[in-house]
Amino acid sequence: VYPIRLVHVGRIKNEGCRLLEAHYLNLLKGYARLDAVEVPEGRGDPDKQLLEEADRIRRALSGIQCPVLLDAEGIRHNSESMAVWLGQGMDRGLSLGFVVGSSHGLHESLKREIKEKISLSPMTFPHELSRVMFLEQLYRSFTILRGKTYHK
Amino acid sequence: VYPIRLVHVGRIKNEGCRLLEAHYLNLLKGYARLDAVEVPEGRGDPDKQLLEEADRIRRALSGIQCPVLLDAEGIRHNSESMAVWLGQGMDRGLSLGFVVGSSHGLHESLKREIKEKISLSPMTFPHELSRVMFLEQLYRSFTILRGKTYHK
Repeated sequence: VYPIRLVHVGRIKNEGCRLLEAHYLNLLKGYARLDAVEVPEGRGDPDKQLLEEADRIRRALSGIQCPVLLDAEGIRHNSESMAVWLGQGMDRGLSLGFVVGSSHGLHESLKREIKEKISLSPMTFPHELSRVMFLEQLYRSFTILRGKTYHK
Repeated sequence: VYPIRLVHVGRIKNEGCRLLEAHYLNLLKGYARLDAVEVPEGRGDPDKQLLEEADRIRRALSGIQCPVLLDAEGIRHNSESMAVWLGQGMDRGLSLGFVVGSSHGLHESLKREIKEKISLSPMTFPHELSRVMFLEQLYRSFTILRGKTYHK
């Protein structure tokens, strides 16, 4: 089982999203040692909020060799190429950390610093649902890498 | 409120997805008169199953002028262009029907017949989660068309 850090901004308030997060975290247990770090949302106007969150995200990513932002402008993988990408990262033995931002997204300075960005969809989704979608794709990637059949 | 038909194959079994579906159906009430039709999954091997489901989907779409398939190979909208597309369809007064297939997807014959296809993501998601993702985007489209702020 591979160590993977998940950095999330803010709590999941929606009950359905919370159940789904727990569901996928549980399924992922057999594949990865997940270290989920939830940093609090920033305060003030959007720019100030994102700046505060960016600082917290940087600290939460300390020690991670390959940080990755989930970002609608990122690389558009399909599930197979996402699995290949993940497999290559693991083969290189890199510590991976995935970041899902808050409702306002991620601060520009963080986007400039962290080059690796993955898009789940060109569409904008609520960040709570994005967290669920990412965990589902992470789980799907592992099942693809293991050649396991997994119900769509 | 605009009439929109939703055609789904199979029941949602996951509790989190069920809660989220109810959540978005409720939010959508102010914007659309949704007519949700759930057709049973087909039986037998995947091809036979999809063929059975295609027949049921055709019947469930009767009377709909503009049927649309949710399909990973479809047009890749972002949330803004999806809203524009929806607004144009409504301006033309067309009755709209959206189809989310089962775990095996949709039969090729149906994909040939129905030209209008929209992709939620190049990634493959479980069909239960796709239903939730679609309802969220439909709701987001309406809020974009109405110029309402909506929390990401």
